[in-house]
Amino acid sequence: MSDYVTVTFEPAGVKATVPVGTNLYEAAQQAGVEISGSCGGQGTCGECQVILAEGKVSKPTSQEKELLTTALIEEGTRLACQTELLGDAVVRVPSVQEVVVRKALTAESVRSVPLAPNVRRYDLKVPTASLDDQRSDFRRLAEAITEQPANLTATVQCLRGLASALRAEDQQVAVTAVGSQVVDVRPTSQRSPVLGVAVDIGTSTVAVYLVDLETGEALVTAAGQNPQTQFGADVVSRIQYANSHSDGLTALRNEILATINQLIRQAVEEAGAALADVYEATIVGNTCMHHIFLGLEPRYLAESPYVPVTAEAVSTSADRLGLEINPHGNVFCLPCIAGFVGADTVGVIVASELTRRDRPTLAVDIGTNGEIALWSGERLLTASCAAGPAFEGAQIHHGMRAAPGAIDEVFVGGDDLAVHTIDDQPARGICGSGLFDATAVLLELGLIDAKGHIVDGQSCGTLSDTVAGRVGGEANERHVVLADAGQSASSPIVLTQRDVREIQLAKSAIRASTEMLLEMVGLKTDDLEEVLIAGAFGNFINPASALRMGLLPEVPEGKIAGIGNAAGAGAILTLVSLRERDYARQVAETAEHIELFRSSDFQDRFAEYMIFP
Amino acid sequence: MSDYVTVTFEPAGVKATVPVGTNLYEAAQQAGVEISGSCGGQGTCGECQVILAEGKVSKPTSQEKELLTTALIEEGTRLACQTELLGDAVVRVPSVQEVVVRKALTAESVRSVPLAPNVRRYDLKVPTASLDDQRSDFRRLAEAITEQPANLTATVQCLRGLASALRAEDQQVAVTAVGSQVVDVRPTSQRSPVLGVAVDIGTSTVAVYLVDLETGEALVTAAGQNPQTQFGADVVSRIQYANSHSDGLTALRNEILATINQLIRQAVEEAGAALADVYEATIVGNTCMHHIFLGLEPRYLAESPYVPVTAEAVSTSADRLGLEINPHGNVFCLPCIAGFVGADTVGVIVASELTRRDRPTLAVDIGTNGEIALWSGERLLTASCAAGPAFEGAQIHHGMRAAPGAIDEVFVGGDDLAVHTIDDQPARGICGSGLFDATAVLLELGLIDAKGHIVDGQSCGTLSDTVAGRVGGEANERHVVLADAGQSASSPIVLTQRDVREIQLAKSAIRASTEMLLEMVGLKTDDLEEVLIAGAFGNFINPASALRMGLLPEVPEGKIAGIGNAAGAGAILTLVSLRERDYARQVAETAEHIELFRSSDFQDRFAEYMIFP
Repeated sequence: MSDYVTVTFEPAGVKATVPVGTNLYEAAQQAGVEISGSCGGQGTCGECQVILAEGKVSKPTSQEKELLTTALIEEGTRLACQTELLGDAVVRVPSVQEVVVRKALTAESVRSVPLAPNVRRYDLKVPTASLDDQRSDFRRLAEAITEQPANLTATVQCLRGLASALRAEDQQVAVTAVGSQVVDVRPTSQRSPVLGVAVDIGTSTVAVYLVDLETGEALVTAAGQNPQTQFGADVVSRIQYANSHSDGLTALRNEILATINQLIRQAVEEAGAALADVYEATIVGNTCMHHIFLGLEPRYLAESPYVPVTAEAVSTSADRLGLEINPHGNVFCLPCIAGFVGADTVGVIVASELTRRDRPTLAVDIGTNGEIALWSGERLLTASCAAGPAFEGAQIHHGMRAAPGAIDEVFVGGDDLAVHTIDDQPARGICGSGLFDATAVLLELGLIDAKGHIVDGQSCGTLSDTVAGRVGGEANERHVVLADAGQSASSPIVLTQRDVREIQLAKSAIRASTEMLLEMVGLKTDDLEEVLIAGAFGNFINPASALRMGLLPEVPEGKIAGIGNAAGAGAILTLVSLRERDYARQVAETAEHIELFRSSDFQDRFAEYMIFP
Repeated sequence: MSDYVTVTFEPAGVKATVPVGTNLYEAAQQAGVEISGSCGGQGTCGECQVILAEGKVSKPTSQEKELLTTALIEEGTRLACQTELLGDAVVRVPSVQEVVVRKALTAESVRSVPLAPNVRRYDLKVPTASLDDQRSDFRRLAEAITEQPANLTATVQCLRGLASALRAEDQQVAVTAVGSQVVDVRPTSQRSPVLGVAVDIGTSTVAVYLVDLETGEALVTAAGQNPQTQFGADVVSRIQYANSHSDGLTALRNEILATINQLIRQAVEEAGAALADVYEATIVGNTCMHHIFLGLEPRYLAESPYVPVTAEAVSTSADRLGLEINPHGNVFCLPCIAGFVGADTVGVIVASELTRRDRPTLAVDIGTNGEIALWSGERLLTASCAAGPAFEGAQIHHGMRAAPGAIDEVFVGGDDLAVHTIDDQPARGICGSGLFDATAVLLELGLIDAKGHIVDGQSCGTLSDTVAGRVGGEANERHVVLADAGQSASSPIVLTQRDVREIQLAKSAIRASTEMLLEMVGLKTDDLEEVLIAGAFGNFINPASALRMGLLPEVPEGKIAGIGNAAGAGAILTLVSLRERDYARQVAETAEHIELFRSSDFQDRFAEYMIFP
């Protein structure tokens, strides 16, 4: 009668009729629907998340407010054990642990994956020992975990505090396991967050993403310049530095380590947490950054035959590397593919699920080096080319990274050039996407000719005087003013003849490589389903500009997609999901790396694509 | 014709006819007989050992002399790849890696097992990288190992030196792996031994056995007193010390660690090796010693319900524990069974293969505590009893451990008592086996009565005057002189009334426990196939004495076997064989521990067995 209500569990469509006031956890058990939960319905583990599709239920409890973000609660997410049925209802049960990475990162597009991190938190009531239950403290604890990882062990450090921790609050404890190893056990009242960091070591920029591993939520992003730039702008100059100084590698490693530790500290402070709450770090970076971070000799990356010391994923204790997170936390460095195709490219492939696609897709990661991954639908080919750091703003007269005040768009407004700057700040320089636009617009206006010369504005009749007036300097040393003194923070921001040369070299290397890979697998431009552009500025790139300057195969503009800092996204995905971590390993194992320079065709192509279309 | 010879490979009985001068490795390949070998016949790995049964072959090469001990060569062991056939021959091929622990340890009887340690050495010629083989340094190395452990990885430390090590001597390297982790790679010319230590932490004595893990040979034994004795003679007093001092556990741990490190250093120096050559340590000890060694709180071992922090095998990096072997070496602590039945008992069971036997067998480990393991043929029951340290010589007026000068045998010689001392030195005290004998002889002579009183020699008519004259002191405080001033290093060595009481308590506890376990599985004394006595002095025990004093069930004397320091032997076996290590885990998992004091019968039995037979 009216004392009973019916609840339907989706997607299974299973129903249960239960007394009013029954909570969803019990109702699910009655219906035979499995809902995960390690605290046994005590509202402490936060695992029994369900989504209320319709119906009347009790209001969120204080425990739910503590364990779920406001955004989750607003979307209808509830803890089954805390939610009482007040009327008929329909409830969606996510597949086990399907809590997704919901919050997009600044300038990132991280796809949603089921939350299945390597680090797990268990909130337990461990049975008290007795003469009839003489199991050891650790065994009683381990067996109290419902979904116990295989071969669960514990660090000696953790075992040292175990007896006291168990007995402090009547065997109520919060347990943290990294992989199959318990690293922390503490009384429930001392429970703290379970955090992880994804670290993207770019040649120019380092980014740290702090993620809540219980919710998958990205909490804070912290980024800064790679301090190794003082030893050289590109990887080859840094390798030379390491080779020619007895403590060169140590110096390079110490610099990057200090910066990463600083960024982590900054992010953790901003989140109001403690460094010890960070139990895992995933690391991406090109092979050279990877080697230097680990302290491996980078010398042979730069000498034929360009082999890494190791390309496999490296997993080790944080204290072994000097990474200042929980000392017993784990550091997972994504695998590399070759000497110049690193864990960053693996990250891009993971983030874009390149090899899970049905149709041929090209991914181009434009950083200080250019890496190209072509998925033919059957084979994964990778290649690298020395694009130079032009597209990241380095070795460009007014180049800068994508930060406030960077010119990130250039277009024709009325009869003049116009620019947009990040955060609408006075112009301080030009970043990658701005360079793309500037090149494309100046080509279109005829201010740059096919060979890449900045032409004399006056001799170019079709231009308005205003635009023509932006060209300054003598032949071969001309420049174009993109933002005059009035628009800029200080002096005018210009694009120089030299800058155009750098851009030409970079785009030609990438285009020639791309075309050669396509040929190798017998594909034509038309066969490509999509062309993905990764890189710190990738999200903002104007596909039309990339096409106009001839950077990419001539696909329709709609097939080009910017996927942002996909390497960083890959690091985040492998942090929140062991399945994605396995995928990263599989990507590295199946990739076929091509050394393009071995082909005599390459130089011809390179020369050919120096010409702008 | 005469240019060909026939070689027969045993035990398979397979024959091959090959040209004179063919080496045994090639001949085996032709015959389809598998011989292990990771260097591919270069004479550097030492793995392709075979035993020449008959026939004429070339003389041992310098490589063989380097890789095989003289004893091995004298027994006919040869490296197949180095041995050329000069005539027909019969060769025995050991089953894979069947190189046995050949050298008995001082006072130990370690059974022979196929050598299959966790630490492996590979002597490799790694392929040189080329543009056609761009595999990473680590991958080329890993794939050069024929019998590669699954999921081989390397420490970051090792990867840091890998590129240089490979290129120092044209990719000829000696590789050391601990489990599935490569911890050391060095140019072949810097090859050093691969050693391990088995450590037996007794409550009173600590023993370290240094073992060559490439041959299974025990090189050096080093032993010393457990320095924790300054904090108390038995485990309970040490636990009390740890409980009542804020840094008590740390102090106890530091003491034992320093002693173990000192003994290892001593053993390694004697073997002319380096600490870094020691890649693994296995540890046995009772649960309290195990806990203190690891730094785990021992408090709850001594409080009902007597649960350990962990009873499982602990495996961790040496540097995490402060054990001064190779810092990346592994420390394997054998599992424990219960609060008072520790890894030492597991070691005894492993050494004696107790649960691999068909028929019921009893094993008694007599140390400071008494541990009893009864194998019924189906079930393994364990129990502990506070035997007191009497049998190890502690709390005995002139007690000492089994060292030179200890009275280890007492017997009737002519019409007087006679003693034997270890190394025939002047008597300095009496050790366990001497106590057994003294008690049995004095019982037999009537100088000790059934209730354990030392009687007045004069009132005992059957004795010779000489013997009777050995009794001194007043009633209840009498003593018997075992060695007079002339035989001893200083003053006479006596057995006191108090000593007899200690012995009575100890033997009664062990006997009562044994009888109760037998009853629990419905066995009678006659069902026992064998009774094994382990303990530091176990090898020397006189079974007749043990029976005479009523320590053991009344089996025929021939069924009693002393198995020496079987706990230490168990540590050695798990050091040289992963199979035995698994067996240790399995023993701990299947053992059923019985808390005898819970039974009201126990006190009755205990009182009953205080009486001497």
